[in-house]
Amino acid sequence: MKILILVAMYQEAKPLVNELSLKETEPFDDALPMRIFINHEKPDIVLVISGTDPKHNADYIGTQAAAVSAVMAIKKFNPDIILNIGTAGGFKDRGAQIGDVYLVTQAFYHDRRIPLPGYDAYGMGGYHCEMIPEIAGALNVKKGILSTGDSLDAQPCDLEIMAKHNAVVKDMEGASIVWVANLYKKPVILLKSVTDLVDYPEENYQDFLNNLHLASHNLKDQFLKILQLFTENKIVVNKTI
Amino acid sequence: MKILILVAMYQEAKPLVNELSLKETEPFDDALPMRIFINHEKPDIVLVISGTDPKHNADYIGTQAAAVSAVMAIKKFNPDIILNIGTAGGFKDRGAQIGDVYLVTQAFYHDRRIPLPGYDAYGMGGYHCEMIPEIAGALNVKKGILSTGDSLDAQPCDLEIMAKHNAVVKDMEGASIVWVANLYKKPVILLKSVTDLVDYPEENYQDFLNNLHLASHNLKDQFLKILQLFTENKIVVNKTI
Repeated sequence: MKILILVAMYQEAKPLVNELSLKETEPFDDALPMRIFINHEKPDIVLVISGTDPKHNADYIGTQAAAVSAVMAIKKFNPDIILNIGTAGGFKDRGAQIGDVYLVTQAFYHDRRIPLPGYDAYGMGGYHCEMIPEIAGALNVKKGILSTGDSLDAQPCDLEIMAKHNAVVKDMEGASIVWVANLYKKPVILLKSVTDLVDYPEENYQDFLNNLHLASHNLKDQFLKILQLFTENKIVVNKTI
Repeated sequence: MKILILVAMYQEAKPLVNELSLKETEPFDDALPMRIFINHEKPDIVLVISGTDPKHNADYIGTQAAAVSAVMAIKKFNPDIILNIGTAGGFKDRGAQIGDVYLVTQAFYHDRRIPLPGYDAYGMGGYHCEMIPEIAGALNVKKGILSTGDSLDAQPCDLEIMAKHNAVVKDMEGASIVWVANLYKKPVILLKSVTDLVDYPEENYQDFLNNLHLASHNLKDQFLKILQLFTENKIVVNKTI
């Protein structure tokens, strides 16, 4: 059983790299910025982060690097299952609270508006995520719809589309990873923890570091539960979803 | 000399596929949707389109498929130079007219707003494109700044950012391709022909098919001029830009 974990930022991945004693290995090639961490004990784990833009000292967050990272990692490691974990914004009015962890049921985009027949639905994504019953049952999480976009903020046009999708969490990579996972017919699980409230921004910055700590801690707890299921061979992944 | 041509849509690529007698060859793998057309005469030409989403019968336009296409094509074919050609929206108030062909000098994004230090500049892109003097001199084109985003329309927040960049053409793939080309230190040329006016939408649909025909025709003419320069060995590409 080989598990691929895709994470955008090093800071999001660091607790897992430490917890799982992952060791960095050689990158995909000399050009791509992604960094690869592995531990070949059972279960066999590969964690890939998107890397850092040296010019701006900014991690390669967003959909393009995530899509490239997913394609390259699937081709190189041929995993049995893909996990994308990370922090997200949440919508309080649709039930999210800071620190919540969400298991994503469906992943949309909110910034790919293409008002032409066929293209409108293509642009919106709306990919269904694998709901592996053993995982859904073992986790102490909420379930909900994710919307992905390349901006950290949300403009009125974005909020309108996210409301239409009934999105409860907002991130910058998820849908892009599900797109690639679906192309390769790989099961994919998205776990997103809420660090801030998109619809009540005034509640965000009172104690942001505490929020981040809480969200990261809860995310790691849920992730370790998934890992335990794999370690105990309690999950059978259907390889031809 | 190997030339890689990256095009989003089949309809944009079709005139070139016919003109250059390109033959379709096997794809990158069984999962990715990109289609590859080749002709190994001199100059050696590879043209890759992003493919079609069968569920929605929509071509994979936008930055994610373009980035994956660019990475895969560069790794497989190791081209000496990359051309991205296609249609675009133009800004009349900044000098664009329908049918104009632009040689892109710099490629920004207008839909990656990340208001954090370092990340703001990362999100905006602003990659410089290779200005090969022989090409710039031989073409009968305007030069200008491109802005890329995943939506066909432009919301007020997009228009504001495009104005800040002084963008004269708007597309859905260019910056993403320059990003990848820069990672692999490959020279990249973007040629964009104007089919519609972003700032005067009421002037667009009077005779859209004629506009498209004019823009495509002008684009092919300029592309063939570039090809002739390569055929006559009039261009020396510096491989370590």
